[in-house]
Amino acid sequence: MNTFSKLAVAAALIAMPSLGLAQEADVTPPNAEIGYILNTFMFLVCGFLVMWMGAGFSMLEAGLVRSKNVAMQSLKNVALFAIAGLMYYLVGYNLMYPGDAWTVTNILGAFGTAAMEPVGLADTETDLTYASVGSDFFFQLMFCATTASIVSGTLAERIKLWPFLIFTVILTGFIYPIQASWKWGGGFLDADFGFLDFAGSTVVHSVGGWAALAGALILGPRIGKYKDGRTVPMPGSNLTLATLGTFILWLGWFGFNGGSQLYMDTAANVADISRIFANTNTAAAGGAIAALIMTQLLYKKPDLTMVLNGALAGLVSITAEPLTPSLGAATLIGAVGGVLVVFVVPLLDKLKIDDVVGAIPVHLVCGIWGTIAVVLTNSDATLYGQLASIVIVGIFTFVVSAVIWFILKVTIGIRVPAEDEINGLDMAELGMEAYPEFSKG
Amino acid sequence: MNTFSKLAVAAALIAMPSLGLAQEADVTPPNAEIGYILNTFMFLVCGFLVMWMGAGFSMLEAGLVRSKNVAMQSLKNVALFAIAGLMYYLVGYNLMYPGDAWTVTNILGAFGTAAMEPVGLADTETDLTYASVGSDFFFQLMFCATTASIVSGTLAERIKLWPFLIFTVILTGFIYPIQASWKWGGGFLDADFGFLDFAGSTVVHSVGGWAALAGALILGPRIGKYKDGRTVPMPGSNLTLATLGTFILWLGWFGFNGGSQLYMDTAANVADISRIFANTNTAAAGGAIAALIMTQLLYKKPDLTMVLNGALAGLVSITAEPLTPSLGAATLIGAVGGVLVVFVVPLLDKLKIDDVVGAIPVHLVCGIWGTIAVVLTNSDATLYGQLASIVIVGIFTFVVSAVIWFILKVTIGIRVPAEDEINGLDMAELGMEAYPEFSKG
Amino acid sequence: MNTFSKLAVAAALIAMPSLGLAQEADVTPPNAEIGYILNTFMFLVCGFLVMWMGAGFSMLEAGLVRSKNVAMQSLKNVALFAIAGLMYYLVGYNLMYPGDAWTVTNILGAFGTAAMEPVGLADTETDLTYASVGSDFFFQLMFCATTASIVSGTLAERIKLWPFLIFTVILTGFIYPIQASWKWGGGFLDADFGFLDFAGSTVVHSVGGWAALAGALILGPRIGKYKDGRTVPMPGSNLTLATLGTFILWLGWFGFNGGSQLYMDTAANVADISRIFANTNTAAAGGAIAALIMTQLLYKKPDLTMVLNGALAGLVSITAEPLTPSLGAATLIGAVGGVLVVFVVPLLDKLKIDDVVGAIPVHLVCGIWGTIAVVLTNSDATLYGQLASIVIVGIFTFVVSAVIWFILKVTIGIRVPAEDEINGLDMAELGMEAYPEFSKG
Repeated sequence: MNTFSKLAVAAALIAMPSLGLAQEADVTPPNAEIGYILNTFMFLVCGFLVMWMGAGFSMLEAGLVRSKNVAMQSLKNVALFAIAGLMYYLVGYNLMYPGDAWTVTNILGAFGTAAMEPVGLADTETDLTYASVGSDFFFQLMFCATTASIVSGTLAERIKLWPFLIFTVILTGFIYPIQASWKWGGGFLDADFGFLDFAGSTVVHSVGGWAALAGALILGPRIGKYKDGRTVPMPGSNLTLATLGTFILWLGWFGFNGGSQLYMDTAANVADISRIFANTNTAAAGGAIAALIMTQLLYKKPDLTMVLNGALAGLVSITAEPLTPSLGAATLIGAVGGVLVVFVVPLLDKLKIDDVVGAIPVHLVCGIWGTIAVVLTNSDATLYGQLASIVIVGIFTFVVSAVIWFILKVTIGIRVPAEDEINGLDMAELGMEAYPEFSKG
Repeated sequence: MNTFSKLAVAAALIAMPSLGLAQEADVTPPNAEIGYILNTFMFLVCGFLVMWMGAGFSMLEAGLVRSKNVAMQSLKNVALFAIAGLMYYLVGYNLMYPGDAWTVTNILGAFGTAAMEPVGLADTETDLTYASVGSDFFFQLMFCATTASIVSGTLAERIKLWPFLIFTVILTGFIYPIQASWKWGGGFLDADFGFLDFAGSTVVHSVGGWAALAGALILGPRIGKYKDGRTVPMPGSNLTLATLGTFILWLGWFGFNGGSQLYMDTAANVADISRIFANTNTAAAGGAIAALIMTQLLYKKPDLTMVLNGALAGLVSITAEPLTPSLGAATLIGAVGGVLVVFVVPLLDKLKIDDVVGAIPVHLVCGIWGTIAVVLTNSDATLYGQLASIVIVGIFTFVVSAVIWFILKVTIGIRVPAEDEINGLDMAELGMEAYPEFSKG
Repeated sequence: MNTFSKLAVAAALIAMPSLGLAQEADVTPPNAEIGYILNTFMFLVCGFLVMWMGAGFSMLEAGLVRSKNVAMQSLKNVALFAIAGLMYYLVGYNLMYPGDAWTVTNILGAFGTAAMEPVGLADTETDLTYASVGSDFFFQLMFCATTASIVSGTLAERIKLWPFLIFTVILTGFIYPIQASWKWGGGFLDADFGFLDFAGSTVVHSVGGWAALAGALILGPRIGKYKDGRTVPMPGSNLTLATLGTFILWLGWFGFNGGSQLYMDTAANVADISRIFANTNTAAAGGAIAALIMTQLLYKKPDLTMVLNGALAGLVSITAEPLTPSLGAATLIGAVGGVLVVFVVPLLDKLKIDDVVGAIPVHLVCGIWGTIAVVLTNSDATLYGQLASIVIVGIFTFVVSAVIWFILKVTIGIRVPAEDEINGLDMAELGMEAYPEFSKG
């Protein structure tokens, strides 16, 4: 294939080193107040792009479940996004950024609702070196919501609505913010391990993946998914929606990674954001092309779902370090993600872990890969620091999630009755259908 | 439910007062020309977000009508958006902002097409304290289009195409701009009543709602909707599209409310826009969660359509004052909107007012609620001024709309023949189907 | 029709001349570094809007093909977007902007991968008069991807996947960048012909159209499309997706045209961008309304697909010059595009050129019209320069594309076997369906 030889050229070309930190960068914004405006507006723009990812997950998942569960999957996605908004306000934001409350004895000092600046801020009384609290809250909230979105896809088609929403309350109010504080809130992973995770391959994506994995193990696979030692395909009901969801996520990711630069007040910062946008795009391209070629080679037919997940895998893979790679390196980092997905999806099925949309391969496996890949292009990262942080965050999230899922299982139950699962959650739990007029074949 | 206790905590926490206007705010931009650039670019970004709401209404309505009317509903949404663009240019913009022409004797002076600055503006000859006329026109146009979008959903599945479009011409060219001028054009509601409506709970949403209500009353319900004293459910054909539409509207609303700050040239203004973004999001979340809980309690099953309308209800409710509330207050204001929708939807059915997508509960009822709620967090608002303005705008819009609908009814007719309605508008009026290949069950 | 008399008013009003270049425009940004930040951020925002057009094409085409080819059409759109990202990085960007390498003997000097600024740019060592290379690359890449998106629609439902992707490699890596360099890279069309093409009616849209036309001629029409001298309608399977795609493209076009101003560092530049946004919107409106009225008059029934293509036709028509027209002139330029589409679609069918989605009428025919229309409002353009450039770009693109398509045809073949075409590409080439559960009628 022609595409192959191009990839070979690419491989040769990315030998050029990442261009490295220019230590002489001028970090003084030309005007403090304008810098504050630019930082803030950047958060708002990038924040609405990340908010849009909520729609992306919703469409991706609605497209990849069977039609009898589509309305429920849509409801879960809207509800989890709303719950994230509420919980992050009520406790999450302050838990994640405890500030001076960062002591064990004083941990409760970090509890409290988020509060924004007063209306009509007086600039003379404000620290103009960063951005408005309101914009920071808005931007960070969307990352919390993303984490919850990851979980819903894996557990689709068999989990009860309310236990899922209760788990979402705990995930968005506590699990996500607490572990995020360890890195982004200035906690020990940041201070003691030198952990680098630019936009959250670990802090967001692997956390969603670990929570999903714990849920999948405790919930069990869908009825009929694994039968007589083989995996029964349960194809998604609407691949155009899945394609739309992937495009939405691709778009939103520019805000996800770009906004994580946090500053746009100097030429250096905006040039860095530009690098991030370009690298994010090329990593997605690399992941999609890799999955396309791999499925063609392995199965003799390309697989649309795999290509979509390949693009997402590329995006997750570049998220831990979208700044330092060259375009060529970013393409390859994304491409490795795309290859990983092609191999891990069937592997999970062999392990009888039923992940309806492939969220574990995409967000957990590529989240880990992306976190490790930081050491390839950023000399400030150490393999030890990255691995230790992956493990610490992983154990915390997996164990706490598993405990919550288990408690929910033995109390109110987390799985719908078999009959409801077979008939579909839409009629059983909602009493409505997503596509009531169309005959199912 | 766990969510309940969280809401109780929230209720307690929002006791903290809205933070109030800091009178000492520095309102001088650090640089006039840069302030002008920032204001203008903000309008363009927020404007394209509001433009995107046109797609949101289109998807929401296409998802909530039956498949036999989907192509027609899509056509109406594209056409009304185009007509709004044309009419607002031809007469609407100048009618809405008459400037010095603001006298009764001189009212005709306000007629005329919109004109933008010359190409390659000379900044020395320009007032740099606001934004470019082109960007202001672009932003304000999208609000006009939104008003028209609200009407199309209510009247779906039975109204003739061309009478609907003629009404849209009058709504976007005259009704909307004239009443909007009373507040946003510096007219008497602004000057004499102290009416506060930040982004248009009344000026946009209730106006769309009143026009829709007048139409629904004169047009009558769909055939078979009310039979033997009960309401026959006519479920939407595609709830994923309805979900997508809701996410699109949620996203677009950041531009709708945020851009209504009008300025982004100082730290104070951009911090205010941040407050607005965060409050807008949390009000939507409050509305969605309230509708979710209410439908669970009332009907023992959550209702996806209600949750979607709950989110939209939250958004409409916060639109009259998205700036002064705290996050907690904004959540509650939105939640009240979500509750209202759950009760008003069946109430309309009892009154045999057939509103296909629930636009009247969402945009009219919550528009009124949001306008009243301004007094809860903004001490500059008076209950009298708010109520009087709601009534004045309501009477004007409802009466003029009713007259137009009535004239259209007795001249060219507004309702398709019964046979066409039963067969669907797509085949009858368009001769094409939205989903021609799929068997209807 | 009421709409008619309004159009008459509009026609009268646009008699007012385009407002002309204010030669005294102050082109010095108030602050060089802030100007650089604003230019760069503008590219990123406009760039992500253009990226979003990739989703628009994907939805438009998925909606306009029959359901048996929808998954394949989705795959092609994701894959071509990824390939464009890779090829534009590997060779396209430098080919398009050869800089000092602009000599025939030195043409190979323009080969090489794109490279961005180093991380943490030192502003003292940087030219702050433009924008970051990373943002320029990101923005320009999206135009390259758009060109490829145009081709996929025309050739849908019968072309083999891999030959199509190989053509995409050549189009995005070589054909598009080489001809774009003639204008935007400072080449001979720019220097010697005074060719004006603001955002690419010719450079992007007609190029996509010519490549599609060459492919359509060599590939031939779909089986059964032209039978016994008449055209057999093959209606699109999902018109809501086509509508969504049109709204997405409409939104993305603000970035496409607006970002082509290239600068946002002065009041004059941002006011110009505002003009462009407003003109782009009104041209789309004009195209949609014109197509609506024309199909009503010609066929007695409006045609949703034509209205969608009318809006797109308006957008393509204004793309060569979105800045200098008044709002009225822009509306009429777009309206002419809408009329052209209504006549050219059946004309192509008479010529037995099978263009599945109407991309040739929209992008090629209106691309030519828009390029010619520049002379109506911009006195710097000459009819000779415009026509000569249209012809030169057209011949180059058509001939090279035809050669590539021909080579592909005689080597690996470009058309699927008749049986596969009849059964649909989804099952034949992918082994999966887009809507596996829904009965086809």
